[in-house]
Amino acid sequence: MTPAPTSSDFDVVVLGGGPGGERAAIQAAKAQKRVALIEKAPVVGGARVNWGTIPSKTLRESALFFLGMTRHRLHGFQAEVTDDVTVADFMYRERLVVQRELDMINASLGRYRIEIFRGHGRFLDPHTIAVEGKDGRRKGSVRGEVIVIATGSSPNRPADVPFDAESVFDSNTILKLPRMPKTMTVLGAGVIGIEYASIFAALGVYVTLVDTRDQLLPYLDREVVGILERELGELHVELLHDDRYATVEPVPGSPARVTIETRKGRRLTSDVLLYCVGRDGNTKDLGLETIGLVPDKYGLLSVNADLQTTHPHIYAVGDVIGYPALASTSMEQGRRAMRHAFGLTGPSASTENLPFAIYSIPEVSYVGETEEKLKEKGIDYVVGRGHYGMNPRGQIIGDQDGLLKLLFDAKSGRLIGTHIVGHSASELVHIGQAYMKMQATAPEIAESLYNYPTLSDMYRHAALTAVTELAKRRGTDAG
Amino acid sequence: MTPAPTSSDFDVVVLGGGPGGERAAIQAAKAQKRVALIEKAPVVGGARVNWGTIPSKTLRESALFFLGMTRHRLHGFQAEVTDDVTVADFMYRERLVVQRELDMINASLGRYRIEIFRGHGRFLDPHTIAVEGKDGRRKGSVRGEVIVIATGSSPNRPADVPFDAESVFDSNTILKLPRMPKTMTVLGAGVIGIEYASIFAALGVYVTLVDTRDQLLPYLDREVVGILERELGELHVELLHDDRYATVEPVPGSPARVTIETRKGRRLTSDVLLYCVGRDGNTKDLGLETIGLVPDKYGLLSVNADLQTTHPHIYAVGDVIGYPALASTSMEQGRRAMRHAFGLTGPSASTENLPFAIYSIPEVSYVGETEEKLKEKGIDYVVGRGHYGMNPRGQIIGDQDGLLKLLFDAKSGRLIGTHIVGHSASELVHIGQAYMKMQATAPEIAESLYNYPTLSDMYRHAALTAVTELAKRRGTDAG
Repeated sequence: MTPAPTSSDFDVVVLGGGPGGERAAIQAAKAQKRVALIEKAPVVGGARVNWGTIPSKTLRESALFFLGMTRHRLHGFQAEVTDDVTVADFMYRERLVVQRELDMINASLGRYRIEIFRGHGRFLDPHTIAVEGKDGRRKGSVRGEVIVIATGSSPNRPADVPFDAESVFDSNTILKLPRMPKTMTVLGAGVIGIEYASIFAALGVYVTLVDTRDQLLPYLDREVVGILERELGELHVELLHDDRYATVEPVPGSPARVTIETRKGRRLTSDVLLYCVGRDGNTKDLGLETIGLVPDKYGLLSVNADLQTTHPHIYAVGDVIGYPALASTSMEQGRRAMRHAFGLTGPSASTENLPFAIYSIPEVSYVGETEEKLKEKGIDYVVGRGHYGMNPRGQIIGDQDGLLKLLFDAKSGRLIGTHIVGHSASELVHIGQAYMKMQATAPEIAESLYNYPTLSDMYRHAALTAVTELAKRRGTDAG
Repeated sequence: MTPAPTSSDFDVVVLGGGPGGERAAIQAAKAQKRVALIEKAPVVGGARVNWGTIPSKTLRESALFFLGMTRHRLHGFQAEVTDDVTVADFMYRERLVVQRELDMINASLGRYRIEIFRGHGRFLDPHTIAVEGKDGRRKGSVRGEVIVIATGSSPNRPADVPFDAESVFDSNTILKLPRMPKTMTVLGAGVIGIEYASIFAALGVYVTLVDTRDQLLPYLDREVVGILERELGELHVELLHDDRYATVEPVPGSPARVTIETRKGRRLTSDVLLYCVGRDGNTKDLGLETIGLVPDKYGLLSVNADLQTTHPHIYAVGDVIGYPALASTSMEQGRRAMRHAFGLTGPSASTENLPFAIYSIPEVSYVGETEEKLKEKGIDYVVGRGHYGMNPRGQIIGDQDGLLKLLFDAKSGRLIGTHIVGHSASELVHIGQAYMKMQATAPEIAESLYNYPTLSDMYRHAALTAVTELAKRRGTDAG
């Protein structure tokens, strides 16, 4: 940690050490640029490492394990959960994983001689950023030819929800739960809400999940969402649509509980409330008004295709620019911004075939078009399905309901959409991604032989179905 | 089950209802051919369903689960193994999975009106096969224009090894173990030997694995095998190279044990011996001498590229023709033979990019060339590696040692080999397979964005390393 200088000049100043900022810093440093990174938190890594992606996925791993134990009911094992179990107990490996990731990030930052300034950054002018200590006092300032805003996002915390980290939590605090609750209400059925609802349900918590919308995850394939909803039901998640809180009242006691009255007049009392309706860009207090940058009502910054704000030398990347707000895309945005700023070449990731994953139980992942979009666009398509319940490996792991659904362009026969709900969906989707990137057709996918038994073999089955269907269509067209 | 007729004519007679025979029968029946299937066992399915692939993979799933429980040491769980545990206890789901598979096979055989004759088939002449009952008496005979021999293979059982299914087992009987042994000797370190050695080791059995060769799995990438050997060591498998049994003596007692004296003079005593050195083609007693077909010394039949024996109308497919003897290839051989016999078209699987998997703990899988082969062929190549220990999902699941290794042609930059050892290797290899099939280059693989966190993301890392290396080579070539 370099002590903040009273003033110092850099080629690049990066605001925020999450995935986007980190990759931007490294990309620029690799090109021999002098780079400063301003990080407010005691550690780098951002939401990905410290309170989002990695910790929640670690808890998820334990939940899957626990679920396996409950569902498989192996004779010969005696297994039970003790009464005083805490969330931390289920997160064995979490500190290990987080520490390892931090070590790796710090090692790269060090290897590339990136100077890290600890404190809060605030624009003084379009090229100068003050670094302030916790007390708000200015410790110094840094000047950059190029600036990258990568400050991320924070859970939205309405004033009338009494977040106390005792019975009312947001997604940044939920993993600090002092004990495993018996019941939980999750307000907000976006990606984060669904992930946590299913993870806690798999750990034996009775979860009520309240969706503000009238249908779950409207941008996903409807058939996939149908299966997800059914499986959430099997985990005893109660899913309520098109409702939201009217009031949230703590119920004193030891331990405390919480009661939510909804707009539709429901009264939900549970040990814990997880509130996760929306996230806001971290743009307050950056002095953006000084330089004329205006975030939208969610605190998000607008950028052009090259990730530039209205100041061409000020880039913004990651969650602070909103959709898709995934660690993988944030990293790529960081690299891409620096390649643009300094005219660097290098493998530029195509955002065309960007996969999307929900790490719920079951997993959901897709890449490419949905049926709904294809209908909108008037593109004729053919569907091929592979069912986990018909696949021997699906049988072995006990996944009866999972689905692989491939969409092929009816004219060219090319794969244009891959949708999966079920075990390992987030990994399996990359086979479809590879075929899509290389513009493979249904017959090309159908003629590959897969390891036996594997879930991947469903690609062959799904493609074979589509080949038959495509042949039928052509027969009809000809006749 | 059709009663065996005294004589009946078919377009195709298939000998053996394992994966190869089943798919041959269905392929021919789909083309409106009259098909008879002769099966000796009470059920169809062959080794894949009944005593090989599916049951061993089901036990493996429990072993992985058990290992996770031991290794993760989750607080909050109390888990232990009871003393009277049997192998069957660990095979919850096995009967379920097997029954479901059998139902599916029987349903397809029924749907396509394939006539099943139960009994032992013996050639009377090149077109006629007698069906014999258990007592050896002839129940009738069937005549086929085309014949498919798909009788599979059996474990080699030398006369001086006292197989008693009490303390001495082969791979067909090992899953009937009456109780979990404390110690086990595995003679033979081929795919089956390594799979069972690691599975039982993961279940807490002390295993000694004796390899007749001086190096494990000589056809695999040496770096991958090195990691496999190290991880077997971590499971406390003692691996002995270049040795074989001299004598095998049961040690009476309750329970009985067994002592093996090796050629090198080692004396190994254990609760159980699993003997799995080689398998022989099931060609004895088929009356092949009557029609002039001569199997090799391992009982295997030779076929041409179209799977024809020296009689053009007699095809042989699956384990009975030897390498690679995988369920996936046997099925494809069955389909291919029938397409050839009847001039059918259809997506023909390329055997070019055929993946190979060992379902050991850890899994091993590869597709394409090895470094060793490329050196032999004098092809210049570049290596890209992705390490599980550096991958966030690898960290989360606790796989520290796994490796993804990609080989690229130095001239074209194309992916020509994918090698994986670690969690989910058998699934992950299909991403490489897809890229290889579509002739993707290192930059094309490097520019895809993967879900985060996933193991698949190692493809990007490995490809990026290769891109840098390829650029260096070109720089050197130019200079």
